[in-house]
Amino acid sequence: MADTEPPKDPQQPEGEAAGPSKNELKKRAKEAEKERKRQERLAKEAEQAKAKAAADVDYSAQRYGKLPLNQSKEREGRPRIQISSLTPSQEGQTVFFRARVTASRAQGSKMVFFNLRQKTDSIQALVVVSPEKVSKQMVKWAGTIPDESIVLVEGTVQLPLEEVKSASIGNVEILISQLFIVSSPESRLPFSIEDASRPEAEFEKEDTQFARVNLDTRLDNRIVDLRTQTNQAIFKLQSAVTDLFSSFLRAKGFTEIHTPKLQGAATESGASVFPVSYFKGQAFLAQSPQLAKQMCIAADFERVFEVGPVFRAENANTHRHLTEFMGLDLEMAFEEHYHEVLELIDEMLKSIFRGLKESYSKEIEWIGRQFPADEFKWLDETLKLAYADAIKLLVDDGVEIGPLDDINTENEKRLGRIVKAKYDTDYFIVDKFPLELRPFYTMPDATNPILSNSYDFFMRGEEILSGAQRIHEPALLIEKMREKGIEPESMKDYVDAFRLGCPPHAGGGIGLERVIMLFLKLNNIRRASLFPRDPKRLQP
Amino acid sequence: MADTEPPKDPQQPEGEAAGPSKNELKKRAKEAEKERKRQERLAKEAEQAKAKAAADVDYSAQRYGKLPLNQSKEREGRPRIQISSLTPSQEGQTVFFRARVTASRAQGSKMVFFNLRQKTDSIQALVVVSPEKVSKQMVKWAGTIPDESIVLVEGTVQLPLEEVKSASIGNVEILISQLFIVSSPESRLPFSIEDASRPEAEFEKEDTQFARVNLDTRLDNRIVDLRTQTNQAIFKLQSAVTDLFSSFLRAKGFTEIHTPKLQGAATESGASVFPVSYFKGQAFLAQSPQLAKQMCIAADFERVFEVGPVFRAENANTHRHLTEFMGLDLEMAFEEHYHEVLELIDEMLKSIFRGLKESYSKEIEWIGRQFPADEFKWLDETLKLAYADAIKLLVDDGVEIGPLDDINTENEKRLGRIVKAKYDTDYFIVDKFPLELRPFYTMPDATNPILSNSYDFFMRGEEILSGAQRIHEPALLIEKMREKGIEPESMKDYVDAFRLGCPPHAGGGIGLERVIMLFLKLNNIRRASLFPRDPKRLQP
Repeated sequence: MADTEPPKDPQQPEGEAAGPSKNELKKRAKEAEKERKRQERLAKEAEQAKAKAAADVDYSAQRYGKLPLNQSKEREGRPRIQISSLTPSQEGQTVFFRARVTASRAQGSKMVFFNLRQKTDSIQALVVVSPEKVSKQMVKWAGTIPDESIVLVEGTVQLPLEEVKSASIGNVEILISQLFIVSSPESRLPFSIEDASRPEAEFEKEDTQFARVNLDTRLDNRIVDLRTQTNQAIFKLQSAVTDLFSSFLRAKGFTEIHTPKLQGAATESGASVFPVSYFKGQAFLAQSPQLAKQMCIAADFERVFEVGPVFRAENANTHRHLTEFMGLDLEMAFEEHYHEVLELIDEMLKSIFRGLKESYSKEIEWIGRQFPADEFKWLDETLKLAYADAIKLLVDDGVEIGPLDDINTENEKRLGRIVKAKYDTDYFIVDKFPLELRPFYTMPDATNPILSNSYDFFMRGEEILSGAQRIHEPALLIEKMREKGIEPESMKDYVDAFRLGCPPHAGGGIGLERVIMLFLKLNNIRRASLFPRDPKRLQP
Repeated sequence: MADTEPPKDPQQPEGEAAGPSKNELKKRAKEAEKERKRQERLAKEAEQAKAKAAADVDYSAQRYGKLPLNQSKEREGRPRIQISSLTPSQEGQTVFFRARVTASRAQGSKMVFFNLRQKTDSIQALVVVSPEKVSKQMVKWAGTIPDESIVLVEGTVQLPLEEVKSASIGNVEILISQLFIVSSPESRLPFSIEDASRPEAEFEKEDTQFARVNLDTRLDNRIVDLRTQTNQAIFKLQSAVTDLFSSFLRAKGFTEIHTPKLQGAATESGASVFPVSYFKGQAFLAQSPQLAKQMCIAADFERVFEVGPVFRAENANTHRHLTEFMGLDLEMAFEEHYHEVLELIDEMLKSIFRGLKESYSKEIEWIGRQFPADEFKWLDETLKLAYADAIKLLVDDGVEIGPLDDINTENEKRLGRIVKAKYDTDYFIVDKFPLELRPFYTMPDATNPILSNSYDFFMRGEEILSGAQRIHEPALLIEKMREKGIEPESMKDYVDAFRLGCPPHAGGGIGLERVIMLFLKLNNIRRASLFPRDPKRLQP
């Protein structure tokens, strides 16, 4: 700082005897004052130049910037953390991690706030100018980092002044000391993660300020869409469902099988199949592992399950149909009664519901913020309705429907609502379907040939599993094929399998995406599929 | 029994005084003798009739026979056992179970031996005539049960006179008290389970008496073929491999994904694809989840794996190619160096080998009886060869091959033999392949642009996993696509995914059937696939 006390005039000769005139004195005083100001200005300028020079030396230069393309040149092995592991007890510790920038906001020229995330977790981080560590230049640069960049961060764990509402981790934040870009988007994002994460209800408010990101836009730009906390959570649950399904069945002595999706002949009539050019001939995509898994039972596997794609060439453009979806299939020889299988499937589904609820409550809550849903409910002792009872519930509710009529989608949902009101459950079983409504391989009831040993399982009034005892004797199978207009010769391998002796068996097939959609009430099956396929969508 | 003492003549009048003539006496004696014989014959016939009547009452009638078609009419809930659970300590206990008849053999008219099996396990059972329990009729009927029938058995656990060599359970046998047919073959078997189970070596002996069941016959009749102990064991192991794979990766924070097999455009050039008629347009079957799993990395999944079918329209008729096989795929964002991924894959594979060896030693031994194999060996610290080192080993062994040449199948096997001799391992890694030999998405080495950050894993001299660090920057990716003659616009969704920012990542894909084939040395990949598909086979 320039001194405010005027300096002694250095030009005043010491020891001069003769006194100057008044005018001369005035003039001298004026000049002295002038000189003082000049000196003052010079000092100021020098100071500024010095300050400027000091500032230009960016003491943070090594602490930020864009990293070169990682070609695995070096391996330092410095430990990196998952932000989900951070707790307030780590206050003051230095941590190092890679994360995605959801958003950033500069506050003046000395501070930038970041929302950083790893999969479903997010945390607040700050870059603040500080001597020797974080330069103005670094802060300025930090403010230019595009959203959705991947950054490598070194920082100190600190406690925020108040709970951070905008991050999933609210009780700690990161004071950044190093900040590098690993990768950043080169094109404008089709929509922001924040917009993609808003509850549907937000868009429906009259005075909404937000542009809705509609489902098609999301699916066209699925890579960005999948990065939302909601989607990260949905697919964590999807992964958990197959794990819970497999683990339960393995523990019950089931063998996992993989049956071919390429079939020499169309499997099961009814549902349409996709033809495939197979070298000089033709093949078809399997509509289900139905025939193959039953053949495994004839081959003494006793209990099998398969997790695999299922293809349906049905031109159905609804909220719950896909042309390719994941089938969770199982088939099981039983000893006395197909209810052994029905009960095992029931236990299996409840173990999935329990597993999701116990281990993923946080994820379910997060998803619920975007797609509000009343909690999925089930009973310890599952409600089992005979088909006739289900019809009666509908009739009592005013639906005009005969005892052997098919229950259509609308009435299924209505049945779901009736059951929910009466029994307080979102999950139930309907058993003993009319034979007429089921595929040719369904075993007729032992005493009433109008009925069959078949069942559907429902979640929130939509079918998620269809199954039955199958016919294991070739003569009856052939009879039933002919009744349904299927030429037994067209499924020779299948029919022949039963000519070689086969135990009584039953099974079922679950649509993975439907379980996820209905458990979470996502309202559209496409939200439960990574890259959904429907009659109009083959990309991405 | 007829009395042997001749009876008193009843016709001799008592108290007669006059003596008969000599002739008369002779005549009388003759007649008496005649009468005695007649009586004797009558008594015998009555005795026989009585015995016959006694025998016709079949006191076992309720203890055997063919059961009616099981339509789940009743549910008694009588506990049934698995024969694998039986031990000599259960001697004298009554057990009840369902099993398949592998073979039966009558010994005289009073005894029939059975070999009964459940999946991989088999046991000896006997039906022996015994008062009140097992009638002659029952034994006779038992002798007529066709092989491969499914029977329901009640019997008593007993200790055999000597270890039963022909069954997997040698220290106990079953004395049958009830025997029912649940289902039996209606047509002649194409081959017997015993023939299908013989070691290949048996057929190769000069004086062999056995007809070899060749692979095509087996595959044409796969349902019977799959019933052998060997095949039951093979597919138990196949199921275990996916479980070990998934469990290891889940424990390391991986998410299981399911990516679509129906693709709007051909994925990856090179390998040919199967075209599919998709409504009015066309689709293609995915040759691998390569592009989709990388897109999941761009979508922040960080670590993903997929177990799913992979389709290759290559007209390759070899021992190790299928047109549809199971891919065990994984992809992982890494922090510093692709070796993080290579090391994780290495640990994963070793955990699979360990898991098989520890939990399935019995099954491995059984399979080895039919397909002899030296035990699969690996090192605690896996051998990692640079490609250049692998080439050097071959050159030192006399192979003419340049440093950047492809190692063909024959030389791969040779390399396997060299490594086995030198390092005593059936498992090793080759790293740093020449870039030229790898797909367009492979990351070049940081310092030597001729090489790449890519690797293959080998089992018994055959590649089972191919993987690499991938290019995660669009500019370089496009450059490399063009170099390989691929129009980037044809994979727009894929390239665009990287425009949105993507962490460095690496991964790999394993062929499930190859792992099984090579671990067990089955010599043909079709033996490791339930219903194999090749250019000439789409059935069963």
